Amino acid sequence: MASLRRTLTAVCRAIQQQADMPARVHCATRYLMNSSNRRLSYSTQVNLSKSLFRRTLTTQAQAEGAPLVLRRDEGGIRWLKFNNERKRNALSLAMLDCLKQELMEGGEDEKVRVLILTSEGPAFSSGHDLSELTSATGHEYHKKVFRRCTEVMTLVQDIPVPVMAEVRGLATAAGCQLVASCDVAIAAETARFATPGVNIGLFCSTPGVALARAVPRKVAMEMLLTGFPISASEAFRAGLVSKVVPEDKVEEETLKIARKICDTSRSVTAIGKACFYNQIMWDRNTAYRHAEDVMVSNLQIKDGQEGIGAFLQKRHPVWTHNEDPVDKE
Amino acid sequence: MASLRRTLTAVCRAIQQQADMPARVHCATRYLMNSSNRRLSYSTQVNLSKSLFRRTLTTQAQAEGAPLVLRRDEGGIRWLKFNNERKRNALSLAMLDCLKQELMEGGEDEKVRVLILTSEGPAFSSGHDLSELTSATGHEYHKKVFRRCTEVMTLVQDIPVPVMAEVRGLATAAGCQLVASCDVAIAAETARFATPGVNIGLFCSTPGVALARAVPRKVAMEMLLTGFPISASEAFRAGLVSKVVPEDKVEEETLKIARKICDTSRSVTAIGKACFYNQIMWDRNTAYRHAEDVMVSNLQIKDGQEGIGAFLQKRHPVWTHNEDPVDKE
Amino acid sequence: MASLRRTLTAVCRAIQQQADMPARVHCATRYLMNSSNRRLSYSTQVNLSKSLFRRTLTTQAQAEGAPLVLRRDEGGIRWLKFNNERKRNALSLAMLDCLKQELMEGGEDEKVRVLILTSEGPAFSSGHDLSELTSATGHEYHKKVFRRCTEVMTLVQDIPVPVMAEVRGLATAAGCQLVASCDVAIAAETARFATPGVNIGLFCSTPGVALARAVPRKVAMEMLLTGFPISASEAFRAGLVSKVVPEDKVEEETLKIARKICDTSRSVTAIGKACFYNQIMWDRNTAYRHAEDVMVSNLQIKDGQEGIGAFLQKRHPVWTHNEDPVDKE
Repeated sequence: MASLRRTLTAVCRAIQQQADMPARVHCATRYLMNSSNRRLSYSTQVNLSKSLFRRTLTTQAQAEGAPLVLRRDEGGIRWLKFNNERKRNALSLAMLDCLKQELMEGGEDEKVRVLILTSEGPAFSSGHDLSELTSATGHEYHKKVFRRCTEVMTLVQDIPVPVMAEVRGLATAAGCQLVASCDVAIAAETARFATPGVNIGLFCSTPGVALARAVPRKVAMEMLLTGFPISASEAFRAGLVSKVVPEDKVEEETLKIARKICDTSRSVTAIGKACFYNQIMWDRNTAYRHAEDVMVSNLQIKDGQEGIGAFLQKRHPVWTHNEDPVDKE
Repeated sequence: MASLRRTLTAVCRAIQQQADMPARVHCATRYLMNSSNRRLSYSTQVNLSKSLFRRTLTTQAQAEGAPLVLRRDEGGIRWLKFNNERKRNALSLAMLDCLKQELMEGGEDEKVRVLILTSEGPAFSSGHDLSELTSATGHEYHKKVFRRCTEVMTLVQDIPVPVMAEVRGLATAAGCQLVASCDVAIAAETARFATPGVNIGLFCSTPGVALARAVPRKVAMEMLLTGFPISASEAFRAGLVSKVVPEDKVEEETLKIARKICDTSRSVTAIGKACFYNQIMWDRNTAYRHAEDVMVSNLQIKDGQEGIGAFLQKRHPVWTHNEDPVDKE
Repeated sequence: MASLRRTLTAVCRAIQQQADMPARVHCATRYLMNSSNRRLSYSTQVNLSKSLFRRTLTTQAQAEGAPLVLRRDEGGIRWLKFNNERKRNALSLAMLDCLKQELMEGGEDEKVRVLILTSEGPAFSSGHDLSELTSATGHEYHKKVFRRCTEVMTLVQDIPVPVMAEVRGLATAAGCQLVASCDVAIAAETARFATPGVNIGLFCSTPGVALARAVPRKVAMEMLLTGFPISASEAFRAGLVSKVVPEDKVEEETLKIARKICDTSRSVTAIGKACFYNQIMWDRNTAYRHAEDVMVSNLQIKDGQEGIGAFLQKRHPVWTHNEDPVDKE
C-alpha cells in the first residue's frame, strides 16, 4: 500500500506543478496529499492510542468493574456493544475514547471486515453525558469532548472497513449523530430517533452536521428545532436508516449485509469507501476526475484483476484482501 | 451578544494568522468574519428599512386600501398572512418589500419566537407578478425584483427565529421557492406545488436554487422541465414539506410545532439555526470544526447552563432568551 | 447566442477585475468564462467528432453488422435505443463513443427537443464491458474508457436538451450511473438497479459519483457496499427514478413528459437546465447570484417576453426556440 501512496503523492505533485491548474483542482490534490500523509501516520496513531486505551479501560474497569464497549469477533465481523445501560450508553469522554480506539483498531486489523455498533436495553445511545458539560468541568474540557466526538463520527466514515449500526430503542443527540454517520444502519421497528438539545438549552449543532448530510433539510430542521422524536419508519423514509425490520429480525438483517461485505475484497471495499466520502465533498467534475483515477488504480491491484478474471471465467474469485499490484509480466 | 461576536472575530483572526492554514479553512473563517460584521449592522439595516416600509405600506394602502401582509401576534407566535387574494398573493416588488421588512422586524423583535407565513383563498402564492417582468419595466427593474426576492428567501433562513409556512392551495414559482426556503412547512392535503416557468418562457431558475436544496434532483428537474404540479403527499415524500394534514388540522399541527419552539430558549435556537445553514455549505470536516465551536459557545451562555442544570436537577428550565454569558465565579 | 456569450464574458471579466472580490466568486466567474468558452467551440467539437463517429459506426457495422445505438425521430423527440442486447447493452468504448456522439449531435440539432435513452430485452445496460478492463488492454486503455464514460455521463447533464431514461430490465454499474445522471427517468415496475462492482473486485466508484448526487447516502452506500439490487419502487422512493409504472405504460408516461418538453421553448429550457446543474455545485448565496443573472437574461430574449405576453393576453405563446434578444424599440 505504501507504494500506491507514493504513486498517488507523485501524481498529485505533478498535477500541482502545472502552472495553469485551476484553484479548485489544486485544492483537491492538496487534500489528497494531506489525507495521504495523514494515513501514512495511521499505524503510529494506533500505537500511541493503544497505551492510552488500556489506561482508560483500566480506569473504567476500576470505577465500574466493566469495560464501556464489549467486543465480539465472528468471522470477519466485529460487534462492538455499548455496555453502559445504566447511563443509557451515554457518549461520555471515556466512552468516546473507547469508541475511537475500537474504530482505529478495527480499521487496522486485517482480520476485521466490518464493524457493527449495537446495544442492549431501552437506549441505543443517549448522546453526551450532560454531567460532563456543566460550567464545573470548564471550557477546555468541553472543547475536548466535542473534538473527541467529531473524531469518532468522522472515523466511522474514514476507516477502511464499513461500519454498521444496529439500532434498538432510542438514539438521541450524539447517539442519533452516530447512526447518521454510519455507512449502513438497520433499525428495529421500535427504534426512535431525536435531536432534543433544545430541551436542555444546548442545540444539537454537531449532530446537525451528520443529520443534514443524511436526510432532507426539512426533516433535519424539524427534528433540531422541536426535539420531537421520529419513528423508525419515519427515519427510514427520510434516509436516516437503511432498513426497518421487526425487533427479532434485526440481527438477521444486519448479518445478511455484514456477511455479504465479508464475501468481498477488503482492499477493494476500502478503496471504494474512501473514494465515496471524498468525492461527495466536491463538485461533480472534480469528483469524477478523482473517481476515474480510483477506478484505474483499482484495476491495477491483484483483487481487481482477480474479480474480473473470475467473472469472465465463470468461477468464484479468491481475494488477497490487500492492495498488492498485479504482477508485471 | 456583542462580546460573543468580538470573541468570534478574534478567534477567526487568530486562525487566519496561522501561515499553514489551508485555503478552505481561510475561506470559512473569512465568511464567519464577514457574516459577523454583517450582523453587527443588522439593527442599522432594520432602522433604515422601517422608514421605507411605512412609505411602501402607505403607497399600498392608498392604492388598494389594505396592507399586503397582515400581522397577528399571539404569545411568541407571529402570523404573517398574505393579503392579496385577488392577485393570488403574487410576490410583486411591493409584496417582497413588505415581506423583507416583516422578516427583519420579526428577527429583531425579542418578543417574537417564530414566524408563520400563511394565506387565505385558493393560492398560497403564485410567485412573481408577471406584469412587472415585461420589457416595459426594463432591465434594471427586473434586476431589482430578483435581488429583492433572493433577499427575502435568504432572510427566511438567516434571521434568528424559525420561519414556518402553512400551505393551503397552490404554491407556484417563487411561491414554491418560499415554501422550499422555510425551516418547517405544514401543508393541507389539498395543497399543490409547481414551478411552471417554462409555460411562460421564464424558466424557474431562482426557485430551482431552493428546490434543489430541498428535494432529490430527479423531483426538482421534472418539476422544472415540465411545470406539472405535484400533490401535497408527493411534496411530503420528496421533502419539500414537513407534514401533510387534512385542511382543518393545518393550524393545529402548525401550532404544535410553533408552541414547542416557544418553549425553548430564543438565543439557543438562534445559535443552532445559524449554525445549521452555515455548516451545510461546507465540507464535513470544516462543518464539524465550526459546529464544535458553536457547541462550546452555546455552553458558555446562561441558557445553556440553565438547561443542563434543570435537567440534572429534574426541574423546568427558566430561560433568559438572551446570549448573556454565564457569570464568572 | 454569440452576442449573449460575449456579454456574459464581459460581465465575468468586469467582476474579476474588482480587487476585493472573494475567491469563491472569482472561482465561479472563471467557471462561467471557461464554460462559455467551452461552448463556443461546441460546434467545432461536433464537427471533429462526426468524422470519428462515422468511422466508429463503420467499424462497428463491419464487426457486428449493426450500429450500437438506433436513432428514431418523432416530432422533436429523439429516441436512442441501445442495440447490443446480446452483450446486455454493455457500455464498451465503442458504445460510449456512439453515445457521446449522439448526445453531442442531439444537443446541437435544433430540431431535437428531448432525447430518450431506451433499450430492448432483459438489460437496460450492464455497465462497462469487463473484457476491456483486464490487464491485457492496459493502463492507458482503462484511463481512456473511464474518461469517455465520464464525458458521456456529464454530457447528459451539460447538453442543452433534456435527456430522459426509459428503464426496462436491469440497470447495473455504469448503466445505473447513466440512469442517475439523466434529467428524468421513467422505470417499469420490473426494472431493477444495482452497483455490483464489489462482486468483481472493482468498486463502483464512478457510478457512486452520480448515485451519491441522486439518492440519500445510506441508500447509495448499501448499494455500493453490497451490490444487492434494488427494485423499481425502492429506486423511486430513493429518488433514483422519477416515476414507476407498469411495463406497458412506460412509453405512454415517457411521452407525456417528452411532449410537454416539446411544448416549451428550446432556448428557455436550455438556459434553465444549464443554470440548474451549475448552481447546485455552489453555496446558496453564490447560486442565487448566478440564478438571478440567468433570470434577468432569460427576460431579455424574445421567448421570455413572448411567454409573458401570451400569458397576460390569454393566448398561446409562439416560440422562436432561439436566444435572439428582444428587439430594441
